[in-house]
Amino acid sequence: MSDDQHFLTLAAHLSRKGMTSLAGGPFGAVVVKDGHVIAEGWNEVTTGFDPTAHGEVNAIRKACKALNSFSLQGCVIYSSCEPCPMCLGAIYWARLDRLVFANTRWDAAAIGFDDDWIYQEVPKPLPERLIPTLHLPNADAKAVFTEWLSLPNKVPY
Amino acid sequence: MSDDQHFLTLAAHLSRKGMTSLAGGPFGAVVVKDGHVIAEGWNEVTTGFDPTAHGEVNAIRKACKALNSFSLQGCVIYSSCEPCPMCLGAIYWARLDRLVFANTRWDAAAIGFDDDWIYQEVPKPLPERLIPTLHLPNADAKAVFTEWLSLPNKVPY
Repeated sequence: MSDDQHFLTLAAHLSRKGMTSLAGGPFGAVVVKDGHVIAEGWNEVTTGFDPTAHGEVNAIRKACKALNSFSLQGCVIYSSCEPCPMCLGAIYWARLDRLVFANTRWDAAAIGFDDDWIYQEVPKPLPERLIPTLHLPNADAKAVFTEWLSLPNKVPY
Repeated sequence: MSDDQHFLTLAAHLSRKGMTSLAGGPFGAVVVKDGHVIAEGWNEVTTGFDPTAHGEVNAIRKACKALNSFSLQGCVIYSSCEPCPMCLGAIYWARLDRLVFANTRWDAAAIGFDDDWIYQEVPKPLPERLIPTLHLPNADAKAVFTEWLSLPNKVPY
């Protein structure tokens, strides 16, 4: 078995563990650095009362805590399913080197999860989105962005 | 001042509070239910060692804890900036009724944040993504999805 399949199988085992313990949906993920698993995650949306607690987000949070870093540069994430746009965004912000996944967004949609629908929503112009969205410029919000540029001691990311 | 501008100004104040305390980037958000703020969030990426700790994600997590629910149906989120794709995904998963924001993804890009770049990445076919991505079917991962369909006592979301 290739290393990639080995880590995907581990992610699949976590997806089953989370599912059978009724923690949430059937999704698992691991973060790997230098060939070693540094964090495991599984979906905990329904028991954790946290719609952001997907397997990938949980694995990313744990990996960052393990490294005391907000960057996972040099790491790979393996997920039992294609990340939804929320998790894909988290993967970009975490600066992961590589993503490997097994089931697809359409497989997820077929068992009742909205991944594909949200993928269709993200690129839409605001007026076409199904969640009503209003862009309302605000002077205070704009001023804070200007202040950021000259803030001393800031930590860019 | 309209209610919308009132809550946006509150989100802007939180963005400044987070920024000046060096918690993270200059972003804040509030979740409102029946005209009352039920959760406040601000960016805590750099101090929390958590790339997912954006203002909106933090506000959503706190609001869900406050309601003991993984759904924010009936609530509105106000953000000092247009949500990035990660936060937009979280907004969909949280089933929020409505989104109001002030600064745009291009305003964020202009002060050094990758929101617009990630918006461009999400709809791309996998081979064109800048993070190398491999879809590798796995028998165990597929089997877990099939098992989900017949799982007793599952909580759909």
